[in-house]
Amino acid sequence: MAEEKLSTRAENFSEWYNELVLKAELADYSPVRGCMVVRPYGWTLWENIQQALDKRFKDTGHVNAAFPLFIPMSFFEKEKEHVEGFAPELAVVTHGGGEKLEEPLVVRPTSETIIGYMYSKWIKSWRDLPVLINQWGNVVRWELRTKLFLRTTEFYWQEGHTAHATEQEAREETLRMLDVYADFAINEAAVPVLKGIKSETEKFAGAVMSTTIEAIMQDARALQSGTSHYLGQNFAKAFNIQFTDQNNELQYCHTTSWGLSTRMIGAIIMTHGDDQGLILPPRLAPIQVVMIPIFKNDAEKAAVQPVVNRIWQELKAAGIRVKVDEREGLTPGFKYNDWEMRGVPLRMEIGPKDVEKNSVALARRDKPGRDPQKPGAGGKSFVSQENLAASVSGMLVTIQAALLERATAMRDSHIRDPKNYEELKQVVQNDWAFSYWCESKACEAKVKEDTKASTRCIPLEGQPDHAGTCIVCGKPATRKVYFAKSY
Amino acid sequence: MAEEKLSTRAENFSEWYNELVLKAELADYSPVRGCMVVRPYGWTLWENIQQALDKRFKDTGHVNAAFPLFIPMSFFEKEKEHVEGFAPELAVVTHGGGEKLEEPLVVRPTSETIIGYMYSKWIKSWRDLPVLINQWGNVVRWELRTKLFLRTTEFYWQEGHTAHATEQEAREETLRMLDVYADFAINEAAVPVLKGIKSETEKFAGAVMSTTIEAIMQDARALQSGTSHYLGQNFAKAFNIQFTDQNNELQYCHTTSWGLSTRMIGAIIMTHGDDQGLILPPRLAPIQVVMIPIFKNDAEKAAVQPVVNRIWQELKAAGIRVKVDEREGLTPGFKYNDWEMRGVPLRMEIGPKDVEKNSVALARRDKPGRDPQKPGAGGKSFVSQENLAASVSGMLVTIQAALLERATAMRDSHIRDPKNYEELKQVVQNDWAFSYWCESKACEAKVKEDTKASTRCIPLEGQPDHAGTCIVCGKPATRKVYFAKSY
Repeated sequence: MAEEKLSTRAENFSEWYNELVLKAELADYSPVRGCMVVRPYGWTLWENIQQALDKRFKDTGHVNAAFPLFIPMSFFEKEKEHVEGFAPELAVVTHGGGEKLEEPLVVRPTSETIIGYMYSKWIKSWRDLPVLINQWGNVVRWELRTKLFLRTTEFYWQEGHTAHATEQEAREETLRMLDVYADFAINEAAVPVLKGIKSETEKFAGAVMSTTIEAIMQDARALQSGTSHYLGQNFAKAFNIQFTDQNNELQYCHTTSWGLSTRMIGAIIMTHGDDQGLILPPRLAPIQVVMIPIFKNDAEKAAVQPVVNRIWQELKAAGIRVKVDEREGLTPGFKYNDWEMRGVPLRMEIGPKDVEKNSVALARRDKPGRDPQKPGAGGKSFVSQENLAASVSGMLVTIQAALLERATAMRDSHIRDPKNYEELKQVVQNDWAFSYWCESKACEAKVKEDTKASTRCIPLEGQPDHAGTCIVCGKPATRKVYFAKSY
Repeated sequence: MAEEKLSTRAENFSEWYNELVLKAELADYSPVRGCMVVRPYGWTLWENIQQALDKRFKDTGHVNAAFPLFIPMSFFEKEKEHVEGFAPELAVVTHGGGEKLEEPLVVRPTSETIIGYMYSKWIKSWRDLPVLINQWGNVVRWELRTKLFLRTTEFYWQEGHTAHATEQEAREETLRMLDVYADFAINEAAVPVLKGIKSETEKFAGAVMSTTIEAIMQDARALQSGTSHYLGQNFAKAFNIQFTDQNNELQYCHTTSWGLSTRMIGAIIMTHGDDQGLILPPRLAPIQVVMIPIFKNDAEKAAVQPVVNRIWQELKAAGIRVKVDEREGLTPGFKYNDWEMRGVPLRMEIGPKDVEKNSVALARRDKPGRDPQKPGAGGKSFVSQENLAASVSGMLVTIQAALLERATAMRDSHIRDPKNYEELKQVVQNDWAFSYWCESKACEAKVKEDTKASTRCIPLEGQPDHAGTCIVCGKPATRKVYFAKSY
């Protein structure tokens, strides 16, 4: 059975990504322009992401709900910046039930407006606050250039929408959810994101302040991986979200919104993958351990099969996501390559000798030194069948930590501190520049024009303790920003 | 604090339902025609339904995926009956990104067509079969008369779509999933549904055979609560879903589809609720136990609070969904009424005397004999704090069983066996008729015209062992059908 070879990352990172998403059956193109099909392997990964995030949302006091897919066009027009930002991307329903609609309906690109409308109905008194609601669902933004998971016309996400009595509470919520995203990205996806504030140019349409987690892909391009916005009273005023405070005075709420999408799957692929395929972080991997029974004849099969079954049961009972590859007519070598390509963190081989020795062979997907021409060679260890679930769990923890460590080193290797603007222009071709910036739109636009790099964020952590001068114009600057090319 | 009284079921069942959905904060009307907002309490109920179903889907070998929201209009036209059935209900996107689309896109009312298209890409060989995929999502059907949860323009559901090598396998799958739905409805929702086959008139547009679970509401109207369809090769031929069989011959697949929606929430409300409000089955209830601390002064509060906290921890650790009502300024009586209205299965009261006696008071929501003017009176028992989690779990099991028993008795009380057509016409005004039918469209149409009752299903179980004569025309009939008015 011939293997189609993937493009390598060095040859063409973008092609490597596109081919891998298809070959690993994470997603597929659909017959609908710009829309993707998320296949079962990709959707299970998303379900694991959802579960990890949803737990964090509930632990911080949020509840889920569902708001309509359709939003009256007039709602968008109530918040000026919001409609300007989203108008070019809207899909519009003009007919329903065979008749032309009186008012066209927009397929939601984001739900601040319709949720704002409902909050104005529900919120009356300070006793009703805060309102802390999240929604899991699909949204549509008409994108011209699409790429599976990274930018598609329809995508899947969660959007949190909260309403508060005071600015301080709302700003705290904004940063709390940014922390939730960073904690998730770092500790579940092993993607060492940087937290920061978006520039005025890059912020969400309608926000007072946007914050972001930014990830660095292996090609050094930035991937915005989750955003959390303080919306001030902009939407509260547009939708009349008011409450009577403890002095019986009518006040506008302060609101926030925050979202993380299936784009995170792209971040995972481009952070960890190698030329053999995906490498999935154990905490999110649909399959954490794949078991390959090895036998040459019926007698060997009879010896191996019961051990495979017992171990499968044992690992499953311990809560490990384990699969036995029982496909017939395929060589072990083919199976090794196949599951490596699909990024399963740990492979377990069990043959007659392993049965004899009461051991199994474990091969780490992330461990270097394997030779793709000799599948299974290198990076393999033999482990006793005693307490195997504990050994396997321990190894999954080790792999998770190793992935984060490697990704952090990769990230840090791409962050540079150019000495002047000429050097910055070079640096941002293949790296990130971390530089003082005067925070003017003019300097930001100049960098973009000269290099195609944008400001990614003003990081919340790791700012120097002294002021400096803008790397573009030389004027005083208090904070450093990341400049980088992005997806 | 004054309580608004609900309409009673006897006064106006429909109003009772509408008021209760709003008052219990399960759902709300939205500013978008026919679309609902599912509020957090309702959505948590749906999440519990999803979890119970999803486990059953996975246990029967299914995986989840996500297909596009939009479907090209031309796809619908490929299956003649399908487009005829759905054309009047379609919402159509004609503009995207500021431009008119070359081909209008339909917002999916169901996904047989787009999934069929993808299956034709993925399925090549008998080795690829069966394909067993489910999708959780939202769909849109332009409804003229809407009712929260029962019939809305947008609703939430799951749709399973499977492809098989043979008719037999596909028919088995159709019935397997019907069994899954019935098992879920009966054992999780305590809704004693009847399984059966839809008439030719009532079947899904494009199906060879439709099966259904039908529930009887307290007003005796039928509620179709889940359907499972054998689609034959209709969609396989329309979308060219072909595979090479083991003799290397090209064959069309046999496909199925099956769906259950947020309508199930309506079934739960109208099966179990009473004039005080909702009664939620413990296995699905967002809150299974509500704890009401009772104290008159700070000294009593100091005695009660630590016990409340300890018990809350203990129940939570045992996996019970428990909430403490700590709201200030509300009387215990108000809280009792409020949580009764919201259908929490079990209420726990803890006051100073309970602390002294090392006991708690438990009041079952479903137990008759309470007096709404004297909240907490009747139906209450005192239980030791020792092994309280076990006592509470046991009581939840008892409540679940009692709800099913009561609902089954209610259902059975509504099933009648009219002696002749004149009697049938009376019976179906307030009950169901279970009668021989010749299976002709003419007789079915006559009943509908004379009484507004439709055929609900030809039940798979409980058919008599002998043939009879059609209750409408008197011709020979082999099977009995349920005639009833429906939602």
